Amino acid sequence: MLDEPRAAGFRTPGTATRGETVPTVPPASTAARTAVDVTALLERGRTLATPVLRAAVGRLAPPMDTVAAYHFGWIDAQGNPTSGDGGKAVRPALAVLSAEVTGARPETGVPGAVAVELVHNFSLLHDDLMDGDEQRRHRDTVWKVHGPAQAILVGDALFALANEVLLELGTVEAGRAARRLTSATRALIDGQAQDISYEHRDRVSVEECLEMEGNKTGALLACASSIGAVLGGTDTATADALERYGYHLGLAFQAVDDLLGIWGDPESTGKQTWSDLRQRKKSLPVVAALAADGPAAARLGELLAADVRSSDVENFSEEEFATRARLIEEAGGREWTAEEARRQYTVALEALDAVDMPEQVRERFTALADFVVVRKR
Amino acid sequence: MLDEPRAAGFRTPGTATRGETVPTVPPASTAARTAVDVTALLERGRTLATPVLRAAVGRLAPPMDTVAAYHFGWIDAQGNPTSGDGGKAVRPALAVLSAEVTGARPETGVPGAVAVELVHNFSLLHDDLMDGDEQRRHRDTVWKVHGPAQAILVGDALFALANEVLLELGTVEAGRAARRLTSATRALIDGQAQDISYEHRDRVSVEECLEMEGNKTGALLACASSIGAVLGGTDTATADALERYGYHLGLAFQAVDDLLGIWGDPESTGKQTWSDLRQRKKSLPVVAALAADGPAAARLGELLAADVRSSDVENFSEEEFATRARLIEEAGGREWTAEEARRQYTVALEALDAVDMPEQVRERFTALADFVVVRKR
Repeated sequence: MLDEPRAAGFRTPGTATRGETVPTVPPASTAARTAVDVTALLERGRTLATPVLRAAVGRLAPPMDTVAAYHFGWIDAQGNPTSGDGGKAVRPALAVLSAEVTGARPETGVPGAVAVELVHNFSLLHDDLMDGDEQRRHRDTVWKVHGPAQAILVGDALFALANEVLLELGTVEAGRAARRLTSATRALIDGQAQDISYEHRDRVSVEECLEMEGNKTGALLACASSIGAVLGGTDTATADALERYGYHLGLAFQAVDDLLGIWGDPESTGKQTWSDLRQRKKSLPVVAALAADGPAAARLGELLAADVRSSDVENFSEEEFATRARLIEEAGGREWTAEEARRQYTVALEALDAVDMPEQVRERFTALADFVVVRKR
Repeated sequence: MLDEPRAAGFRTPGTATRGETVPTVPPASTAARTAVDVTALLERGRTLATPVLRAAVGRLAPPMDTVAAYHFGWIDAQGNPTSGDGGKAVRPALAVLSAEVTGARPETGVPGAVAVELVHNFSLLHDDLMDGDEQRRHRDTVWKVHGPAQAILVGDALFALANEVLLELGTVEAGRAARRLTSATRALIDGQAQDISYEHRDRVSVEECLEMEGNKTGALLACASSIGAVLGGTDTATADALERYGYHLGLAFQAVDDLLGIWGDPESTGKQTWSDLRQRKKSLPVVAALAADGPAAARLGELLAADVRSSDVENFSEEEFATRARLIEEAGGREWTAEEARRQYTVALEALDAVDMPEQVRERFTALADFVVVRKR
């Protein structure tokens, strides 16, 4: 079965080259894999959502419209149009796909896709400022280019716009969608609060890390996976099941992200080498390694405890980061996280079983899950 | 008529003592003035809204609940309970009153009152950080005590909570209320963007200033004045008329605020003397004076143009500020702004004429308008 042709983005397990992270994904139906063109699915979400997203952002008063356009990668710091790649666009693809669960056209999910993208980018603008991150997607962050006040203000504006895009539909379904989006946003904020507090602690448990990642990544992917169906008038049980799919897919996504944050190829990820180690991030491989027994975990614990109090971590040599990465791997943190990605992926697909939907739509959800756990950036 | 007894907070025009600003308010029905106890009306709004507001804020995850409680004046920087005065509470009073327009109980307006207060305080948290303001209501601002990240994060959380409080009602009316609140929030953000951009300009027209103040103050007071009625199931025309009342009342409120920002008594306002001049604020008296002809306006223009480029304004002597205040007054900026408060007050009351409501409710709206334009803080 593993030798069957794969959809774009899906790779045969075990073929990882150095610098890549390819968790072994348990194969679902082979038919699904051969039938779905994930690239086309992502492109569909992007094509449907982007014009509406641009129109929504265009409603902002100057200079917020320009600052937002810079953030989205539509213009450069001088205001000239650019051809940004716009990211992976998994969320819009999920939002329009979820509309099809109810038999509605994918277009029904578009306001949801746009609202989710607006909330996601509101959180990026504020998080980058709070975290002092100077780069995102190979570019200077908004607060670096336009100052902290614009980062706060435009983030606020995108958040408000997200609600506006939904509520102006004026339907009962839109109200329900806005309510779910608000819950997701609250979770997002809770997750950022946890992330900030964990930075100042020596130890964070695996459970705490998963809770934080569930809030920061799971909740909004949950909303993206259900919002189209909610706008299409689905029942609560179906919306909840789709949210479970998205939540666990988000945790799988984040586990992969945490692997890429340490062992990812800088050329693919757009981040520095050992990016998460430089930021002393309490990511899953780190907390899982620290929770293990044995000399590697103990040595890692000593090093990281000293790092928390050091002001010199950013100037460490490649060798010093490589040592920490090796200890994490020796203590089992890398393998545990890859396993966790597989576990969450499995739970995500199981959640779909509870939902009655056209077989083609189910195959597409499955293919998007495959894509998310087998990616290089 | 002017010698009739007045509701609490209403003062006979012309009795202003030095340091006070008491615009001459055109008296409405004398019966209204004698019948309404404004203090009780404000207290009713506060009493109904505060427990629900506290419960909503209590939902925030630590440490955001504590930071928010500090901001609201419920605890001090060390976490000990305080007996903060909670502000004037005009917005909650308006929100619960507006429910009565539809014949509903004031309680119907409570989720609206709470949502409006949450949005107002979200904007204070972010604006204080953007503007670098270190003091609010005689206390250090949140970013000063808990750091910029907490000010951003807790502001975001209050904004999300505002939507949650409305949307969890799950009714069509709540969806409509949330939509109006979102529009008001977008206006609030537009106003802050204008405020920031005006700081770096030599000249701002009176129209630009009014537009900015309409966004920063009018829009949310408009929402407060209609949200209870919207939750009570009122029609669009009535909600729009109540919004017009609140919008123009907001402009009247802001005109008075701008007078107090220059000539207010620091003991009453809780601000420094010449507060708005210290901040080089392009408030109404300033822009109106600059728009005038004559030697005072010309001299003021020269001084303020130099001030914009000076880094020393905060260290000016009392005399230097007094000179600027005197020129503003000589150029007619003080009188124009007092007139403007009266004009906006009149338009606000006229908007009520379009609305069919119990006479007692109308009298209360009128009394609250009187209170807003005749206050010392």
